[in-house]
Amino acid sequence: MPRVVITTPLEPALVESLRRQHPGFEFVYPEELLAIPRYAGHHITDPSDSPERLVAWRTLLGEADILFDFGPSALQAELRGLPRLKWIQATSAGIGQFALRVGLTTRSDIVITTASGVHGAALAEFVVMSMIYFNRDFGAVIRDQRTHHWQRGAGRLISGQTVGIVGLGSVGGEIARAVSAFGARTVGVERSLVGRSAAGCGVSRLVALEDLDQILADLDVLVLAVPHTAETEGLLSARRIAMLAPTCLFVNVARGQLVDEPALVASLQEGRIRGAALDVFAVEPLPAASPLWDLPNVLVSPHSASTVEGENQRIVDLFSENLVRYQAGEPLRNVFNRDLLF
Amino acid sequence: MPRVVITTPLEPALVESLRRQHPGFEFVYPEELLAIPRYAGHHITDPSDSPERLVAWRTLLGEADILFDFGPSALQAELRGLPRLKWIQATSAGIGQFALRVGLTTRSDIVITTASGVHGAALAEFVVMSMIYFNRDFGAVIRDQRTHHWQRGAGRLISGQTVGIVGLGSVGGEIARAVSAFGARTVGVERSLVGRSAAGCGVSRLVALEDLDQILADLDVLVLAVPHTAETEGLLSARRIAMLAPTCLFVNVARGQLVDEPALVASLQEGRIRGAALDVFAVEPLPAASPLWDLPNVLVSPHSASTVEGENQRIVDLFSENLVRYQAGEPLRNVFNRDLLF
Repeated sequence: MPRVVITTPLEPALVESLRRQHPGFEFVYPEELLAIPRYAGHHITDPSDSPERLVAWRTLLGEADILFDFGPSALQAELRGLPRLKWIQATSAGIGQFALRVGLTTRSDIVITTASGVHGAALAEFVVMSMIYFNRDFGAVIRDQRTHHWQRGAGRLISGQTVGIVGLGSVGGEIARAVSAFGARTVGVERSLVGRSAAGCGVSRLVALEDLDQILADLDVLVLAVPHTAETEGLLSARRIAMLAPTCLFVNVARGQLVDEPALVASLQEGRIRGAALDVFAVEPLPAASPLWDLPNVLVSPHSASTVEGENQRIVDLFSENLVRYQAGEPLRNVFNRDLLF
Repeated sequence: MPRVVITTPLEPALVESLRRQHPGFEFVYPEELLAIPRYAGHHITDPSDSPERLVAWRTLLGEADILFDFGPSALQAELRGLPRLKWIQATSAGIGQFALRVGLTTRSDIVITTASGVHGAALAEFVVMSMIYFNRDFGAVIRDQRTHHWQRGAGRLISGQTVGIVGLGSVGGEIARAVSAFGARTVGVERSLVGRSAAGCGVSRLVALEDLDQILADLDVLVLAVPHTAETEGLLSARRIAMLAPTCLFVNVARGQLVDEPALVASLQEGRIRGAALDVFAVEPLPAASPLWDLPNVLVSPHSASTVEGENQRIVDLFSENLVRYQAGEPLRNVFNRDLLF
């Protein structure tokens, strides 16, 4: 019977439901080795660095056919050497750079499935909130509230704004759907347009990544929703930041490495763009000395835009579907494509 | 030829478009008597209190068949005595209490049309932003940003939350549509259910205002979107506030007079409800001494949630349609119903 080792804290009811639904698998949930999550959906992998615990973990990992999440950081470089390991179900969507770093990409016989699709709704809400927040200058409203200052003003509607969305995976697709519901025009940017249409992707217009430069000046909002790959690293370069309109809002729900952060800071400081809502940063936690913290036209979100109650349920639902497929010998959902990394 | 006096600042292009589209009317736009608006859609009626200006205004009002907005505050009590006046197009939706106060309700021969329908999209955006803001505790995120503190956390999705909307006019209808697009369950509350169905109103469930008490405990969000009338004054009483769940967010985009504000403050201070996003208050501007300003679970918006660029265009479009109807002798749109006031 394939052995599944769960390496991240899960609600007991979810572990129980996995056991109940999948009698053909053996589930190991080493509660005594797992840390206590600090919030719902907290995927903490490092309970303690005691050598005894790491020894216990190493034994568990060595006997696993399937892992739910990547286990303790100290042992992640050993994952590629585990003889029995056949499949890892990740709990986040953007795991490519991690897999590369720990050498998992060298083991083509280990399938990695991502949590792509789980975070779309939460991230779309973050984008919509950011748009309304900046369109109405709620930064100023909140500052006024602190000083008991009543200052009326006029904002702008989402309706009629043009939102560029780089990446139309499950996250980008949800973002397009949400802002369209408020009457925004959407320009989707995809790596390849082969076999795709704007209507099929749920956007007003579809352009290829290589043509990104041509749309930047016309955007009211630019949203990044692509994975971090060799191709996307530094995608929003200083040159491209300079092409954005002074009225453009930048929203990053992807990865900080996609952006030339110093160039973004300069642009924000000089008012060359309208503002930025950032959930991800080049270095996380964002260093206390980063100028981003104090810019009045920046909303700093601590990489939590995707984290909502019920997230574990959604990941377990996906894992559950994949367990059925695994047992039936069918292709899994959300298989990570190593080829995109290079 | 009927004479239209425009008593609130309008963009020159909008005045010009009215003149061009409606050659059967004489339009008076006394630019020299009007104040300079401080923001787009600012409907300021008091340019100065100089006696000379008021004399000039009094003459203009006396020669008007139709008014666009209610004119200078100092003369509003005289509106009911204007012999030629037949119709006033208001620039806001909730004008009932004002009409009552200045005695316009005694002149059944003067038609008042409201700007109902103009503000729905803007107010729906405010409700959605408030929900996401409180669901993800962005108040804390923004406080953390000020202290350069990186604190991850988990929020909640709109999806699955139950939103009670009191009033399903054009504003309430837009709110229902917007939150439903994010997967919320909606409970619409209407004065009368005669001839109405939940599906027809675009809500998951429809209840009568007299049954409001029965739904309060089950709401994740309560939104007020009814006009201020004798029936709705004090609608959200201390008794009803006490019935709300500790997890309930209160959003008011209607009028402050609908709420027992001291009881609301007490409930917020004691954490008996989750929070409040308030665009309207019992007294406006909100007095500097109000405890609402400093409550960490309150978002104070300075009665600007409905004010967006393009608002004047939308009001003029409505006015323009009504001018056509007026000339054709057809019923006007958005006629204010005096009977609802009492």
